[in-house]
Amino acid sequence: MLADFLICNTSEVLSCAGPAPRIGRRQADAGSLARGVVAARGGLIVFVGHESDWRRLGTLTDDAVVLDARGGAVVPGFVDPHTHVIFAGDRRDELRRRLAGATYAEIAADGGGIVSSVNATRAATEDDLAADTRARLDEMLRCGTTTCEAKSGYGLTTDAELKMLRVLRAVAADHDIEVSPTLLGAHEVPVEYRERRRAYIDVVIREMIPAVARERLAEWCDVFCETGVFTPDESREILLAARQAGLKLRMHADELGPSGGSRVAAELRVRSADHLIFVDEAGADALAAAGVVATLLPIASFYLKLGRSAPARMLIDRGVAVALATDVNPGGGFSPSMPFAMTLACFSMGLTFEEALVGATLNAAYALDRHDHVGGLEPGKQMDAVLVSGPAGDLIRVGADTIRAVVKRGRVCHAR
Amino acid sequence: MLADFLICNTSEVLSCAGPAPRIGRRQADAGSLARGVVAARGGLIVFVGHESDWRRLGTLTDDAVVLDARGGAVVPGFVDPHTHVIFAGDRRDELRRRLAGATYAEIAADGGGIVSSVNATRAATEDDLAADTRARLDEMLRCGTTTCEAKSGYGLTTDAELKMLRVLRAVAADHDIEVSPTLLGAHEVPVEYRERRRAYIDVVIREMIPAVARERLAEWCDVFCETGVFTPDESREILLAARQAGLKLRMHADELGPSGGSRVAAELRVRSADHLIFVDEAGADALAAAGVVATLLPIASFYLKLGRSAPARMLIDRGVAVALATDVNPGGGFSPSMPFAMTLACFSMGLTFEEALVGATLNAAYALDRHDHVGGLEPGKQMDAVLVSGPAGDLIRVGADTIRAVVKRGRVCHAR
Repeated sequence: MLADFLICNTSEVLSCAGPAPRIGRRQADAGSLARGVVAARGGLIVFVGHESDWRRLGTLTDDAVVLDARGGAVVPGFVDPHTHVIFAGDRRDELRRRLAGATYAEIAADGGGIVSSVNATRAATEDDLAADTRARLDEMLRCGTTTCEAKSGYGLTTDAELKMLRVLRAVAADHDIEVSPTLLGAHEVPVEYRERRRAYIDVVIREMIPAVARERLAEWCDVFCETGVFTPDESREILLAARQAGLKLRMHADELGPSGGSRVAAELRVRSADHLIFVDEAGADALAAAGVVATLLPIASFYLKLGRSAPARMLIDRGVAVALATDVNPGGGFSPSMPFAMTLACFSMGLTFEEALVGATLNAAYALDRHDHVGGLEPGKQMDAVLVSGPAGDLIRVGADTIRAVVKRGRVCHAR
Repeated sequence: MLADFLICNTSEVLSCAGPAPRIGRRQADAGSLARGVVAARGGLIVFVGHESDWRRLGTLTDDAVVLDARGGAVVPGFVDPHTHVIFAGDRRDELRRRLAGATYAEIAADGGGIVSSVNATRAATEDDLAADTRARLDEMLRCGTTTCEAKSGYGLTTDAELKMLRVLRAVAADHDIEVSPTLLGAHEVPVEYRERRRAYIDVVIREMIPAVARERLAEWCDVFCETGVFTPDESREILLAARQAGLKLRMHADELGPSGGSRVAAELRVRSADHLIFVDEAGADALAAAGVVATLLPIASFYLKLGRSAPARMLIDRGVAVALATDVNPGGGFSPSMPFAMTLACFSMGLTFEEALVGATLNAAYALDRHDHVGGLEPGKQMDAVLVSGPAGDLIRVGADTIRAVVKRGRVCHAR
């Protein structure tokens, strides 16, 4: 067996190998292999196993790159299946203002809030939008993310949504992170349509979706189904139009209240229902029966101080595959870190470390329908990995800066 | 005014300057100065103010170091007033086991728990203990800590406690972090004294405290006052003996239950009562009246999944100065990051960003009785600072790696 890339001298490889998604008790199986090695050729994994077997079976090319893990652990590159990473404008100051007691209404009245992100994104040049997005992807990469989803949704006109997705495509073309693009024209009813929301839904269905499908600018269509945003009926109509146009489906569901999103998600068998802070047991059973992944975003609950998290334990126990994501966004998604999403999943949601890791890798890859080539360390998949400077559990030692290297397609694209 | 060190081109300097501690509403005053500059000479600050004033008043030496903040914010170097940073042995694997459901008793039965840290620390060579401690201090420094407290307490014999404090002194002598050492002989009754605890208390009082005082190995004496550890009466006796010997006092109080620690802290007017998860309003009033600082450790609540945090808002509202600390320790203090302590203080305890920052700087310096020379950016204090790559609020964007440089006594000791 010939390899041009090898990770050796590990304490443990957590491969997350095997069929996706991992459901129920199997979500706790992260595929631990003590002192494993991982070998790849041409960016694809050819071997994961014991060092002694590699010595017997493997050969390195003359120019092979050998990464000495120095006794640290190795896990798959993280897959972040829910981000709003492309936007213009800076709302980070809202964080301090909110903590000091400013209400969302006060911030919006001062020109903050989502409207300000929409205005800034519409006004931004493509170059500026690209530069901002690239910087955010760089941050995510340093946190170990090698594949992510990215949504439009701060344009809210056909032109501006298309601009976002075109810029995203251009940025993704030369970034180490592999990007799965999503049309989220139905992120919000824009101000100018507030009195005629039906007309905006028509724009989404008759203009945006066909144009995006025509240019193949997105793989997914998402809808923000929530009281005050889009109703379950509106969400269903938009999603069905998108499916008709060839887009795959995912949705924001039951984030701020039990607003019916998980019912629509199960009915349409969308790939992923996201947030689910208010999903109940009946909703969980419906998602499980329909094979919908629950993508949970504990960082959003944390920074928005929602005071509760999605019932992750209940979802796992009722047979729903759980994935984790960061929800990077301008107004509350302040952490680019999948390890922090894992940390909160463990300490606020009651997941085990292994469940959280599977949620951040294999199940997240399934949530993006990319589990055929990312999300696990096994032959045939891409050589995407994170080297930890100590044991794998160090990933959830917040602030300890324990990611030593990030590998995408067999190339070390971040190291310290 | 002559300076050999200058930080310029900031967006904001949060100086935390002024009298310590900051109590009540004043804790929210972090001393914001838009586009400020900070100048120092010989490691001491000589000027903090507007750029235009500096241009008028200041002169740089020929060999001056100029740090361009590139539009980022500057805050004082963090002061971490409660750590158990010196110990031997590695219990990080307990984190994963605990998350997977192992009880503390099961982990202890397998040779884990505090007993394992004591055994490892007793057995460790001074060189190994020094190397481990140095590595942990390095981690803290990268997180912006420039001054910290460090306790003994994993020796639990006179010799082993003295060894810890001697190693700590040696490590501190050539580390950038300024260390304030604490004798915590009364951390736990060691196994060999479980049936005769009085005899152990006598060892602490008659051997450890005099020996430590004689060698000037510690500035502070601390006691773990808690049900099942040391009673309020025992804690009082130990602390009074320490005061008699010339040590200053601090204590672990009301962490796991309302066990009377805050009453003792107020009665003895110790400098700092730490943890205080179960302090009530009467306890807060007593602390406020006695001028005791409340040092809160939200990272401990988080990683130990205590399910509640100290009532930080109540403490501030009742006039107690609140400081923040990491509680770095082998069994649960898994984060070396004062910014993470601030993050949890904001999002789990309801502090504003400014209150958290004052708690991590000026009030923490007061908790260590070092507010005369650290904890704030003002003339006469040490040139200890953290440069943020963006706005100051980025410090609480977990995982975003936003600390660009750490300065101690006018020297850049970490940069990226």
